[in-house]
Amino acid sequence: MRVLGVDPGLTRCGIGVVDGGRNRHISCVAVGVVRTPPGDELPMRLKAVADAVEQWMDAHQPEVVAIERVFSQHNVRSVMGTAQASGVVALAAARRGLPVAFHTPSEVKAAISGSGRADKRQVTLMVTKVLGLSEAPRPADAADALALAVCHLWRAPMTSRLAAAEAKAAELAKAHRQRLRDARRSSAGRGDPTR
Amino acid sequence: MRVLGVDPGLTRCGIGVVDGGRNRHISCVAVGVVRTPPGDELPMRLKAVADAVEQWMDAHQPEVVAIERVFSQHNVRSVMGTAQASGVVALAAARRGLPVAFHTPSEVKAAISGSGRADKRQVTLMVTKVLGLSEAPRPADAADALALAVCHLWRAPMTSRLAAAEAKAAELAKAHRQRLRDARRSSAGRGDPTR
Repeated sequence: MRVLGVDPGLTRCGIGVVDGGRNRHISCVAVGVVRTPPGDELPMRLKAVADAVEQWMDAHQPEVVAIERVFSQHNVRSVMGTAQASGVVALAAARRGLPVAFHTPSEVKAAISGSGRADKRQVTLMVTKVLGLSEAPRPADAADALALAVCHLWRAPMTSRLAAAEAKAAELAKAHRQRLRDARRSSAGRGDPTR
Repeated sequence: MRVLGVDPGLTRCGIGVVDGGRNRHISCVAVGVVRTPPGDELPMRLKAVADAVEQWMDAHQPEVVAIERVFSQHNVRSVMGTAQASGVVALAAARRGLPVAFHTPSEVKAAISGSGRADKRQVTLMVTKVLGLSEAPRPADAADALALAVCHLWRAPMTSRLAAAEAKAAELAKAHRQRLRDARRSSAGRGDPTR
């Protein structure tokens, strides 16, 4: 499965493409960062991010897009821009019929380093290691985009197993309720206890 | 000038088109609201908002798009969705080469009602009045979108006069600095004070 990971942002938007195979084997296909000048008007910056992400989608044909979920505990102004950037990325995926998964920064850190509180340096280090890169991806946003794609690949099987288990449980519960209803109906039908 | 006003949102996105003529005369061209089901996935909701806004742009050919500026003092989760919706609207405008103006809720309220702290009922009342509508636009998001367009029409001339005045001032200052430089150069050149 090929995943396009996006660490959304206006000043720096990290983009990384990772292929996942069997036995958790993964490889880096491409990584980069899109920059838009802080002095440009917001609509033009969003257009530059959307155009770039669409070029990456066309060039690398991912099967799924993983986007970092934005939280608002940071700087209010930059969070708005980040949310808007993530919106145009999600839109680009939706218009191509690509599924989108959002992962929180803690989920990404936990998946890649084993700790939800790893710092940027540790995330870059682990990304470089697990993808067998000859050098660390720069800037940190590019490494984050790869980490996000890796997180998605490693979490996806677990998430689908969980979803499958939940669906199975729901099915069993439904069958059980049906059997109860049938039993009640059948006992109500048999009015003659001697029969 | 024709303005498309957008009160961004995922559950309800207000859209209004207002024409502005001479002497502050304004008229309502169209007003409506786009709704997306809260149970749908975010990318599909953003796509529905983007598709609808683009249809409105195609149908009404506005010259400028006015979008409500999102603040994060409200519910964090809904603010993120609102910011993402405003992002896809700004992107749609940018891709059509339409200028985008952001106005804060207080600016809109002040422009339409004279008070930055007017409530929703007052805004709806004033929108109905200034646009000479036979009935109040519903829901409030639709009225807000019209208020935003009216705000833009009434603020725009002031904003451009201010920009023109600032440009004039900057030009005068530049000419003044140039005269000073010329004077210094000329006095340095005339080494002979008796000349």
